[in-house]
Amino acid sequence: MNDTHRPDLTSWVESANAPDADFPVQNLPYGVFRRRESDELPRVGVAIGDRILDVEAALEEGVLGIDTPARTAAEACGAPWLNGLMALGPEYAGALRARLSELLRAGAPEHAADPSIAERLLVAQREAELFVPAEIGDYTDFYASVHHATNVGSMFRPDNPLLPNYKHVPIGYHGRASSIVVSGTPVRRPVGQLKGAGDEAPTFAPTRMLDYECEVGFYVGEGNAHGEPVPIADAERHLFGVGLVNDWSARDVQAWEYQPLGPFLAKNFATTVSPWVVTMEALAPFRAPAAPRPAGDPPPLPYLWSDADQARGGIALTLDVLIASRRMREEGVAPARVSRASFTTMYWTPAQLLAHHASGGCNLRPGDLLASGTVSGPERDARGCLLELTWRGTEPLTLPTGETRKFLEDGDEVTLRGFCERAGARRIGLGECKGEVSAAR
Amino acid sequence: MNDTHRPDLTSWVESANAPDADFPVQNLPYGVFRRRESDELPRVGVAIGDRILDVEAALEEGVLGIDTPARTAAEACGAPWLNGLMALGPEYAGALRARLSELLRAGAPEHAADPSIAERLLVAQREAELFVPAEIGDYTDFYASVHHATNVGSMFRPDNPLLPNYKHVPIGYHGRASSIVVSGTPVRRPVGQLKGAGDEAPTFAPTRMLDYECEVGFYVGEGNAHGEPVPIADAERHLFGVGLVNDWSARDVQAWEYQPLGPFLAKNFATTVSPWVVTMEALAPFRAPAAPRPAGDPPPLPYLWSDADQARGGIALTLDVLIASRRMREEGVAPARVSRASFTTMYWTPAQLLAHHASGGCNLRPGDLLASGTVSGPERDARGCLLELTWRGTEPLTLPTGETRKFLEDGDEVTLRGFCERAGARRIGLGECKGEVSAAR
Repeated sequence: MNDTHRPDLTSWVESANAPDADFPVQNLPYGVFRRRESDELPRVGVAIGDRILDVEAALEEGVLGIDTPARTAAEACGAPWLNGLMALGPEYAGALRARLSELLRAGAPEHAADPSIAERLLVAQREAELFVPAEIGDYTDFYASVHHATNVGSMFRPDNPLLPNYKHVPIGYHGRASSIVVSGTPVRRPVGQLKGAGDEAPTFAPTRMLDYECEVGFYVGEGNAHGEPVPIADAERHLFGVGLVNDWSARDVQAWEYQPLGPFLAKNFATTVSPWVVTMEALAPFRAPAAPRPAGDPPPLPYLWSDADQARGGIALTLDVLIASRRMREEGVAPARVSRASFTTMYWTPAQLLAHHASGGCNLRPGDLLASGTVSGPERDARGCLLELTWRGTEPLTLPTGETRKFLEDGDEVTLRGFCERAGARRIGLGECKGEVSAAR
Repeated sequence: MNDTHRPDLTSWVESANAPDADFPVQNLPYGVFRRRESDELPRVGVAIGDRILDVEAALEEGVLGIDTPARTAAEACGAPWLNGLMALGPEYAGALRARLSELLRAGAPEHAADPSIAERLLVAQREAELFVPAEIGDYTDFYASVHHATNVGSMFRPDNPLLPNYKHVPIGYHGRASSIVVSGTPVRRPVGQLKGAGDEAPTFAPTRMLDYECEVGFYVGEGNAHGEPVPIADAERHLFGVGLVNDWSARDVQAWEYQPLGPFLAKNFATTVSPWVVTMEALAPFRAPAAPRPAGDPPPLPYLWSDADQARGGIALTLDVLIASRRMREEGVAPARVSRASFTTMYWTPAQLLAHHASGGCNLRPGDLLASGTVSGPERDARGCLLELTWRGTEPLTLPTGETRKFLEDGDEVTLRGFCERAGARRIGLGECKGEVSAAR
């Protein structure tokens, strides 16, 4: 933790000082934006309140110094993705964040001397178009919530919900990078092969069991060379930051196709990510011990174990899922929160996921996305997908309009939100990850 | 088929005229190369005999015309990958191939007028370094050989080898793009979690069941927009060409980790591809009917069925696997062919794989790689991986030196070869896909 986390800091960008602001001066997440309806090239920005600090403009303004790590970091932001900055390692992104923290604080000399600097550096978020923040070379999806794995397993194998490998292996699989879209992009209901238990043959039809999955995504910073694993003790420094991930899923397609090689079309039609990447540094005040392993669970193999990681492998990050049906939106009814889970309940830490991923020599590249898998807690209202919340449709959800949901219907808008709160620290948020279901083709 | 396939054509590049040459003037596959130990940027070339035609040099020489599709195609080759050319669609790559076919034929006026053009256009393959030919955004691995699926299934479920979905769904999963390497790159034996049936807990150790998988890879040409499927009737035109793929696999890691989400670390430590991409156009004389479905098999759903595809969905492509142990190489013993299979035995056609992949709206991008899965035929010596050939190690293979193999040992070099032969057509080859196993870290 450093000076950038001081809870008493405020910003001359007034909107950043609201108590529920996701992007106070203590956060400063990175993203990629351009002005809406402009022909600007997408470029890197930093969220502050309801504004975006344009990093290129800060370079041009000359406020990043000469020959400083902050300047080097800003120059790596030239491309329309964060990959260049991610590749530099945490010191550079941290130096830029520290400098921007000084610049955006209430009383910053640059702003005091010339308040019009605000117009040259800042763009209103409502005027901006946001993009997938990194060129994601490979997307991996894990299964790190034991509550999620147990719930899903219970529906298929009531007597033996968790497979024998679960508590030894951070289970994961490769997802599809091409169909990752940014928050706000409509998600078309996919068609696919469906076969009910009583059906003689499959049909090809729009999914009837469209679901969301509320996940946390970790973007890789510095990569590792092909063939060279990342020791668990070094794994955290290869994590650049986090965003929200909605791993949309067609449950009926999944049930029919997934054996023996895992989910494929059930997942690859779309994955939505939030636009802002909150750095691991900004999360520092909210790190917590990893969830203790229940008594009797096997100890992880040494390549997955580090005392330091166990001491701070958790993140006090709360995840909310909200649903607004089309009728709710038409009637002006606020989105209904259907679940709230904490990332502290995860069975595997982010460092364990990354160390496992690289343990056989697989190379991770800057900008790769490692998603946690659905984050579900032990309580009923902490279940991070409808499959669990409605117990495969057997316990439908009731929305404020009286509408019920087993799975998503066309026009439903799903919003994921994430935020960190802790006594003695300034609340920070991950922003939103939103998508509306549009009708099948 | 067009003029470029005429079996009587010969080239003024003499080595292209050898009867067993993989790269006669009827082939002209695309790849990416540079001169070894030079500081040249990798660039696009076309294989001809034991030479590479430098496409940039052909542009500079002015032999591609002005404002022609061939010239446009050559200009799209500017980047160090084939993606630009792939994105243009088959007409452009075909126009360039047709022009190069004229230029490289025996008696070509340009060569007759000035034989020194050879020195300006050609680089010897032995002097060239070759690269992964495309920037592969996403790599998908299918499971399209029913013989492979049946063999593998038999070892795990003797009474019910094929799962119920196999004959309805072209089963596939997402692979890892970052660890795809070009032929010739050593492959380090991975470490991973292993757990034998009798072991109480897993250990973390070098795999004891390292295997190859002999596959055919299809590179995507023109992509499809996110949300827009590709009708089966159009699917072939989205295929740019083919190469060889060795999907190295750690069978013990796979057995322990793969449930419920599929193979992960068992596969993502390395995948080797051959450097030359043989275009679908060059394969035209070798197209064959798709393998007939055995009586009683369910008909594919309409989105996977086209009479035209059934009529030419097969490829008369023979695939050989050769192994040379370190001792064999030291003693000057030639690599031993351990299997030979034909791609005509596949259960699903390339067009079916692509149409299925895009059927839920997943977008395929130029340069994406769709691999077939292990190509195994019905005969014992047509099994395309050691898991099948040695029946999980129970029937070891004997090499010419008397050495035996259940799985690969350090120092073993595996070479995949592919070629097309048919009466009335000039034989063409895919070249080689080679890798030597190095010791675990």
